[in-house]
Amino acid sequence: LAFGSLPTGAHNAITDVPGVRVGHVTVWHGAPGTEAGAGEGVARTGVTAIVPVGADEGLLGLFRRPVAAGVAVLNGAGELTGSIEVAEWGIIETPIVLTGTSSVGRAYDAAVDAMYTAGADEVVIPVVGECDDSWLDDHRRRWVTVEHARAAIDGASGGPVAEGVVGAGTGMVTMGHKAGIGTSSRQLDGVGTVGVLVLANFGAVGELRVAGTLVGPTLRADRHASPAADDRRERSSCIGLVATDIPLDARQLTRVARRVGLGLARVGSVAHHGSGDIFLAISTTNRLPRHAAGRVAIELLADGSLDDVFTAVVDATEEAVCNALFVADTVTGVDGHVVAGLPVERVIELVAPAQR
Amino acid sequence: LAFGSLPTGAHNAITDVPGVRVGHVTVWHGAPGTEAGAGEGVARTGVTAIVPVGADEGLLGLFRRPVAAGVAVLNGAGELTGSIEVAEWGIIETPIVLTGTSSVGRAYDAAVDAMYTAGADEVVIPVVGECDDSWLDDHRRRWVTVEHARAAIDGASGGPVAEGVVGAGTGMVTMGHKAGIGTSSRQLDGVGTVGVLVLANFGAVGELRVAGTLVGPTLRADRHASPAADDRRERSSCIGLVATDIPLDARQLTRVARRVGLGLARVGSVAHHGSGDIFLAISTTNRLPRHAAGRVAIELLADGSLDDVFTAVVDATEEAVCNALFVADTVTGVDGHVVAGLPVERVIELVAPAQR
Amino acid sequence: LAFGSLPTGAHNAITDVPGVRVGHVTVWHGAPGTEAGAGEGVARTGVTAIVPVGADEGLLGLFRRPVAAGVAVLNGAGELTGSIEVAEWGIIETPIVLTGTSSVGRAYDAAVDAMYTAGADEVVIPVVGECDDSWLDDHRRRWVTVEHARAAIDGASGGPVAEGVVGAGTGMVTMGHKAGIGTSSRQLDGVGTVGVLVLANFGAVGELRVAGTLVGPTLRADRHASPAADDRRERSSCIGLVATDIPLDARQLTRVARRVGLGLARVGSVAHHGSGDIFLAISTTNRLPRHAAGRVAIELLADGSLDDVFTAVVDATEEAVCNALFVADTVTGVDGHVVAGLPVERVIELVAPAQR
Amino acid sequence: LAFGSLPTGAHNAITDVPGVRVGHVTVWHGAPGTEAGAGEGVARTGVTAIVPVGADEGLLGLFRRPVAAGVAVLNGAGELTGSIEVAEWGIIETPIVLTGTSSVGRAYDAAVDAMYTAGADEVVIPVVGECDDSWLDDHRRRWVTVEHARAAIDGASGGPVAEGVVGAGTGMVTMGHKAGIGTSSRQLDGVGTVGVLVLANFGAVGELRVAGTLVGPTLRADRHASPAADDRRERSSCIGLVATDIPLDARQLTRVARRVGLGLARVGSVAHHGSGDIFLAISTTNRLPRHAAGRVAIELLADGSLDDVFTAVVDATEEAVCNALFVADTVTGVDGHVVAGLPVERVIELVAPAQR
Repeated sequence: LAFGSLPTGAHNAITDVPGVRVGHVTVWHGAPGTEAGAGEGVARTGVTAIVPVGADEGLLGLFRRPVAAGVAVLNGAGELTGSIEVAEWGIIETPIVLTGTSSVGRAYDAAVDAMYTAGADEVVIPVVGECDDSWLDDHRRRWVTVEHARAAIDGASGGPVAEGVVGAGTGMVTMGHKAGIGTSSRQLDGVGTVGVLVLANFGAVGELRVAGTLVGPTLRADRHASPAADDRRERSSCIGLVATDIPLDARQLTRVARRVGLGLARVGSVAHHGSGDIFLAISTTNRLPRHAAGRVAIELLADGSLDDVFTAVVDATEEAVCNALFVADTVTGVDGHVVAGLPVERVIELVAPAQR
Repeated sequence: LAFGSLPTGAHNAITDVPGVRVGHVTVWHGAPGTEAGAGEGVARTGVTAIVPVGADEGLLGLFRRPVAAGVAVLNGAGELTGSIEVAEWGIIETPIVLTGTSSVGRAYDAAVDAMYTAGADEVVIPVVGECDDSWLDDHRRRWVTVEHARAAIDGASGGPVAEGVVGAGTGMVTMGHKAGIGTSSRQLDGVGTVGVLVLANFGAVGELRVAGTLVGPTLRADRHASPAADDRRERSSCIGLVATDIPLDARQLTRVARRVGLGLARVGSVAHHGSGDIFLAISTTNRLPRHAAGRVAIELLADGSLDDVFTAVVDATEEAVCNALFVADTVTGVDGHVVAGLPVERVIELVAPAQR
Repeated sequence: LAFGSLPTGAHNAITDVPGVRVGHVTVWHGAPGTEAGAGEGVARTGVTAIVPVGADEGLLGLFRRPVAAGVAVLNGAGELTGSIEVAEWGIIETPIVLTGTSSVGRAYDAAVDAMYTAGADEVVIPVVGECDDSWLDDHRRRWVTVEHARAAIDGASGGPVAEGVVGAGTGMVTMGHKAGIGTSSRQLDGVGTVGVLVLANFGAVGELRVAGTLVGPTLRADRHASPAADDRRERSSCIGLVATDIPLDARQLTRVARRVGLGLARVGSVAHHGSGDIFLAISTTNRLPRHAAGRVAIELLADGSLDDVFTAVVDATEEAVCNALFVADTVTGVDGHVVAGLPVERVIELVAPAQR
Repeated sequence: LAFGSLPTGAHNAITDVPGVRVGHVTVWHGAPGTEAGAGEGVARTGVTAIVPVGADEGLLGLFRRPVAAGVAVLNGAGELTGSIEVAEWGIIETPIVLTGTSSVGRAYDAAVDAMYTAGADEVVIPVVGECDDSWLDDHRRRWVTVEHARAAIDGASGGPVAEGVVGAGTGMVTMGHKAGIGTSSRQLDGVGTVGVLVLANFGAVGELRVAGTLVGPTLRADRHASPAADDRRERSSCIGLVATDIPLDARQLTRVARRVGLGLARVGSVAHHGSGDIFLAISTTNRLPRHAAGRVAIELLADGSLDDVFTAVVDATEEAVCNALFVADTVTGVDGHVVAGLPVERVIELVAPAQR
């Protein structure tokens, strides 16, 4: 399946943007049939950390020279800590950590720990995003620890990114099927790279569109999807992160972040009332020193050249969600909840006529 | 072609919402080949007015009991006067007038005239939206007068709504083809009616998706589209108006308005840098008296029931844009610019495989 | 009276920012006692235009190289056209025109005329702000014409700026006293100049604070103020414009604009429900060509050096409002409405003890 | 000193709003001269929790029937978790917890714990605000634990509220003097009660205004203030919380929250670049069930009656900050940093002439 005509990067991942690293810690244990609160419990959750600077530079480098950032909200039934500072200062000074809703505090604490350990000598405001994985995870048991989140941050690396049922994506559901982490990238010749990573946990099965074809109703009729999972629209969510090495400022990145929602729409999202559709965009270029003062010179891509960036974001977002869906296998979690993996062959069959 | 599974209203138009009226004035004259500024000039422009109260009540009724409203901006390279007041007070107290970019002042003036003539005895802030029709219209000649705009307001009526090359849509272009005014509606059983009207003037031909199928590249290869028109992305736009009789407040209507962008995404929009993608939603129910004071009681649809409204908006928006495209015929305007009507049979042929 | 410790510019006016020009047209006629709608009517209104580029460059220069801009709303019961584009693109490409509420359409139309006359060959979206002068002006007579507004734009000049009962300020009222146009400026040594211009038309007499001293209640007891004028809080307003030659981008200018509200608070404003407290900030430096593409280099003042700019804006705003109040004489308008000028000697007497 | 003419509530505290409870936990130990990181360390920090429902109802009642809420940001160099959800849904479903910047994650975790312990069976998004207390506190030691924050929540009670150097206010500094927690309330006859609580940690000594009189420069000349503390503007902050039993909806509460900034301006704030001036307003009335669906009836105070609420908020905010300053004694913290208490008698002497 093709999602637009722009070429992808080497790994078709957010890590194609130079310096961007991703780390996953999956927290998984317990017999899937177990009821919530019973026995040793069922963990289907985790943490994914995105570090926007290379390992050579490390977190102290990020602290000293934050990356430019912008945030956009399509539907705000969710959390992205740090978003107020991003909106005001247009920067991010910590890793970006994704996890299940009930683990935000610990991921936040871990990010502070990581920054202090790296040598940050002033207070920091980390960026932590969440989706609700409580359909599969016995969330009130609070499996994720500060150590888990630290391990995700400390283990972040470049190169290929694991997708689907991994890290923060472990317990996530999209359009009635198992999903989670998805990523994709686009190359703009002579301009730079655009990478997108989503934590996909949104929508109802009847809404699913793959590469333009509305497959949801057929999958539902086929009983391929998980109807009960489909009813848990309340507190669904999709966090979308765009990274680029194109020199953009905070205003431009806010505009870029807003386009993630258009990619979700292509997959069928109408942005449910209960969904936290929250998007962040960062540029790894043109970073200013933490305490810059007086006049500074920066270089930017002019607004008049943004359209290709917008197209790259929409295409890569659509593909990232599909990647999460195509890769994720069926998961059984707490209370015997089963969320089916997407029946990929059936979907390909349904989509094929429109692709000719 | 079906756009979602919800039933449409009687006219599949914004006027299916009780009391909502639409008026068009088309301003058209001059030999199409004429250069800008030469001779008597070429007019391909007009005005469309949406009056959110019935003729029995009239503008004075609207002044005395404004309708609830919310506004959302996907890309703000355009104008919707009154949007600051909508964001603060959550109401609209005048007709909503759409026109070409260079005629906003006159449409605004006409709305003030209309309100004063109707008996408004305080100042008002009208809502006027625009798209740029200067590819076809000799815009610097400023054809639209206050009288034209008054006539659109005064002539607003219920029932079927003319679409395509009419009123404010006269000179508009979408995805390289002639478009303009489009409208559609959805019925939510036992809840109410949702109507959408768009002034469609956005996108590039290669981006066009109809009912999920990406037809743009084929149409471009077929040379069915207007390549030159396709290059005028700067200052394209899409104003989208949602009206409903479901009792919603300003916060909820802001959320509703935001969903118009998801409908545009389905048609292929990535919200170009130069596009004014600005959306307004109004509820004709629960109107408070202009000088209400003390405690007032209102009734609302709870947030938990909004998802169907969101679906209705996205589906109706997608259909409204397609209606504008399917109805509009080829237009030749100033400087010999030709904008082709959509080759409907060819599109149906392209879309058919995916519809089975 | 001193408002902060920063030095003012040569004219203590927004025109101290190099290139910034101001033009006023006052529309005044009719016997003051006349009832609304009777006889030849009573005009107490006008237009003020701020042109952010020098006469040598002219409007075409502004069109070709817009100035950077940001907008902020403290209370949005008013209108500033163009604000959606300012928020998205961060620029202004036309003069900024202020007038009475019912004249916005004509001022808008005049700004379009002026730009087209100057040679602009694309559509433009002008910036027009308003306050409600209908307490003194027989507003439904619509005195202001397109020609008046054009004259204000065309007549804009540098140097000293007339304040009080002039231009758009002709019919305005603040804290129960006659006010209107006020301006002030501050010099930041080695950094640049900050100028503020307000169209002051807000508040109730009991709220007035001058240089920190609450003088309102005493003035009310003295019967120095106009109690009836004090009751017209509905649709009061204050438009505040900041101009600077300090190189700032749109995000920074949005932050700068937000500080105007803190200056109004010092004068006693609580931002009434009916007030359009809308602020704009522009930087005349670092202007990019209209169709800039690819990479561009710009220079900015770093965020870490903004505090002095913020102080300058708050101090100059406070002084600008006081200037409008101190200069404006008593005006009698339509329906025999009298709005008293501030009793300056009495105010000085009241304020004196706190100044020692 | 009088701050406006409206009467205060019984305790002149946010707890005058029926049902609102406040809990403090102060974390204080270590010899004040100790260098950062050395020995057992110096703790000058804490937690303050505001619970917007009565003890009889408890947190489960809050979970089941959230309170209406609105958020506003004057300068966003800070954090208020949950703000995205407040902006979208207009509600708060957890306690509001304030603490030092580096403790946000733990306070967040504690609020989740508290809600789950109380019986919440779905994920929640807590509201946690912060100011930077690292001038006095050896912040990298991370003194605040989840247990501290739980104790603040669990210990919340009605009645008088401790102010100054207590709870989250323990390490805070305002205008070069020791400050922290301050609160005040106003009664609107026949309408309801407005309470404000601030965590005050902002501004520079030269800016301080008390009851309108600029006292900062004199205090600085007197060497009463702490010049070093004055230089730590980076990462200062003021979180302001408004609570009321007046029935207001989310849009109205957003407007109410915005007025807190005007109260800060009266004390001299220009909202420094490094300040997190973030405001929240809640209404304890008209709470809807968590899963409300279909049509619901609510009662509201009409917008036309909001002006008195705005005045109450501005007056109470000004007084709350002054209360924090007047009550707080000198504190010596890490690295031998001393922050002087306000010399109250001297201030009264300076302010007196203007009060006659």
